[in-house]
Amino acid sequence: MTQTPTEIPDVPPCNRNRQVLLSARPDGIPQASHFEIAETSVPEPGPGQFRVRNIYLSIDPAQRGWASSEANYSAPVPLGEPMRALAVGVVDASRCDSVSEGEYLYGWFGWQDFAVADPSAIMLRADLGLPLAQFGGLVGINGVTAYLALTLCGRPQSGDTLLVTTAAGGVGSLVGQIGRILGCRTLGLTGSDDKAALCRDAYSYDAAWNYRDTDIDAALADAAPEGINVFFDNVGGPMLDTALRRLAVGARVVQCGTASVPSWTPPPTGPRNEREILTRRLQWSGFVIFDHMAILPEAARQLAEWHAAGRIDLRLDVLDGIEHAAGSIADLYAGRNTGKRLVRIV
Amino acid sequence: MTQTPTEIPDVPPCNRNRQVLLSARPDGIPQASHFEIAETSVPEPGPGQFRVRNIYLSIDPAQRGWASSEANYSAPVPLGEPMRALAVGVVDASRCDSVSEGEYLYGWFGWQDFAVADPSAIMLRADLGLPLAQFGGLVGINGVTAYLALTLCGRPQSGDTLLVTTAAGGVGSLVGQIGRILGCRTLGLTGSDDKAALCRDAYSYDAAWNYRDTDIDAALADAAPEGINVFFDNVGGPMLDTALRRLAVGARVVQCGTASVPSWTPPPTGPRNEREILTRRLQWSGFVIFDHMAILPEAARQLAEWHAAGRIDLRLDVLDGIEHAAGSIADLYAGRNTGKRLVRIV
Repeated sequence: MTQTPTEIPDVPPCNRNRQVLLSARPDGIPQASHFEIAETSVPEPGPGQFRVRNIYLSIDPAQRGWASSEANYSAPVPLGEPMRALAVGVVDASRCDSVSEGEYLYGWFGWQDFAVADPSAIMLRADLGLPLAQFGGLVGINGVTAYLALTLCGRPQSGDTLLVTTAAGGVGSLVGQIGRILGCRTLGLTGSDDKAALCRDAYSYDAAWNYRDTDIDAALADAAPEGINVFFDNVGGPMLDTALRRLAVGARVVQCGTASVPSWTPPPTGPRNEREILTRRLQWSGFVIFDHMAILPEAARQLAEWHAAGRIDLRLDVLDGIEHAAGSIADLYAGRNTGKRLVRIV
Repeated sequence: MTQTPTEIPDVPPCNRNRQVLLSARPDGIPQASHFEIAETSVPEPGPGQFRVRNIYLSIDPAQRGWASSEANYSAPVPLGEPMRALAVGVVDASRCDSVSEGEYLYGWFGWQDFAVADPSAIMLRADLGLPLAQFGGLVGINGVTAYLALTLCGRPQSGDTLLVTTAAGGVGSLVGQIGRILGCRTLGLTGSDDKAALCRDAYSYDAAWNYRDTDIDAALADAAPEGINVFFDNVGGPMLDTALRRLAVGARVVQCGTASVPSWTPPPTGPRNEREILTRRLQWSGFVIFDHMAILPEAARQLAEWHAAGRIDLRLDVLDGIEHAAGSIADLYAGRNTGKRLVRIV
């Protein structure tokens, strides 16, 4: 059932296209200095194309990989091009039968005011009764990632103990809430006392800790004496190593990010984990949302349904002005966001 | 359908019970010096028990873990006790309704001439038309491990490229043959030129290398330019690290052993692998056969059927005399066996 989004900002007329270009190749985490803003004319759609006026630019941890020249699951963004990004916008011109002027879309529209695209760039049509910004949030890639990675790879059973890293973040805060809906006891690790409190109070975690001042091994041993059944990891590194050694036999590990590792060149080292995999009979899976595009609308509908029932929410951290995009990836990795970071540019 | 095993050795009368006792706790791989042979009287079964006269003692890589005091998937063998082991034997006395005198069994009978046990010690009844020794081999734990770990965790599809470590060993040589039956292209890594030739000539590997004098990364890049789809690993360590970086997107990794790592105390280090898991969307599973006891007879029947059709075989490496048991675990880890090592004690 198609619905109209709510809380739609006013979109004033505009006759220039501001673009946030990748101007230098980052070694590790992209900083504001790796980008510059340029201005060009508003592009015109060709046959079979449409033009989107962007409203919310999405800031995602995966952009680090897209900006990097290291082998990855997508080709690196060329220097001098607008930064690859998801965005929520409104179609303001269309020469494409399947896309109508006035339609709200979430897709690959980049860090810029206007994008010319064809339908393959659409991730999701914003046709659910949610605040418009949540199409870059609750049902955006972080939301559908949380839902699909947890259910497809984590396979939680009612009564399982679920541990989540970056537990207050755009993915983690949803994993915790979905885990609770599915009957799990939920434990969260996050980067500040405030966020740990938020995990407990707003995201219904049964327990949450600030990893910076917690003996994680002792906390997990105490909170999950029988072991952890599902480990949803967004960070990698030493926190992963510690958690692996507190997993129950048969536990599932979902590798959804490696946010704690600042650079993979040269490859960092750590304790060998293959014996843990063997003796605990772990099932450790890597998850990338782009393998699951066909089932995104279904996942989005489930999340919107839980949202309508008041069972799930995503805190948005919206900055106003395109100049905030460039530094926002680094903000995520430094934990300077609270919830899902978006940049509003109208 | 119940059949009688073939090639059954003569079992002469015997009135003493020789036992190979674990006399010292090994730090890493158990050596001959960690065991001693003692002699006691022949034990009598109590009510509900039976007595087995052992014929073939099994030597298995997993015994390293059983002899170790490190946390593992089974309790450590107490010092001064007969070494925990599987064996093939014949029932020579029974006070148990479900077990008959004269029956051949494969089970937890230890490194000794006689074991008194109850039915929970039986792994498999030797009721298929195979040479008796193959109940400790082709359909013993290594055979059913090869079959079940490959099919349940590796999930090979016809046309997949399958890489196997310890490719000429008791598990690996079967994984290669089963992989071929299931339509895979098979690549093997083993520890000598002779074994590499055996892999190609006897175990139908499409390619096999002696890892000691091969640039493994280059060999895999050349043999599998599209990447490896199923990696069946028995060794861990640097060979695992290299192979992981040559896997295709969506590959399955079966962790079935860690034979290349001499000790886990203190934990050895290596390159971090979580980014490989994420970006390649790997599914990495630990496999321990003891989680799958209910389906062992079914797996054994499938293996025996392929054996009868001449599609699969397991080379046995049988030493004569109980004195060969103690040094045989170290032999496996040093690659001094060719095929599945058994010790015949009648």
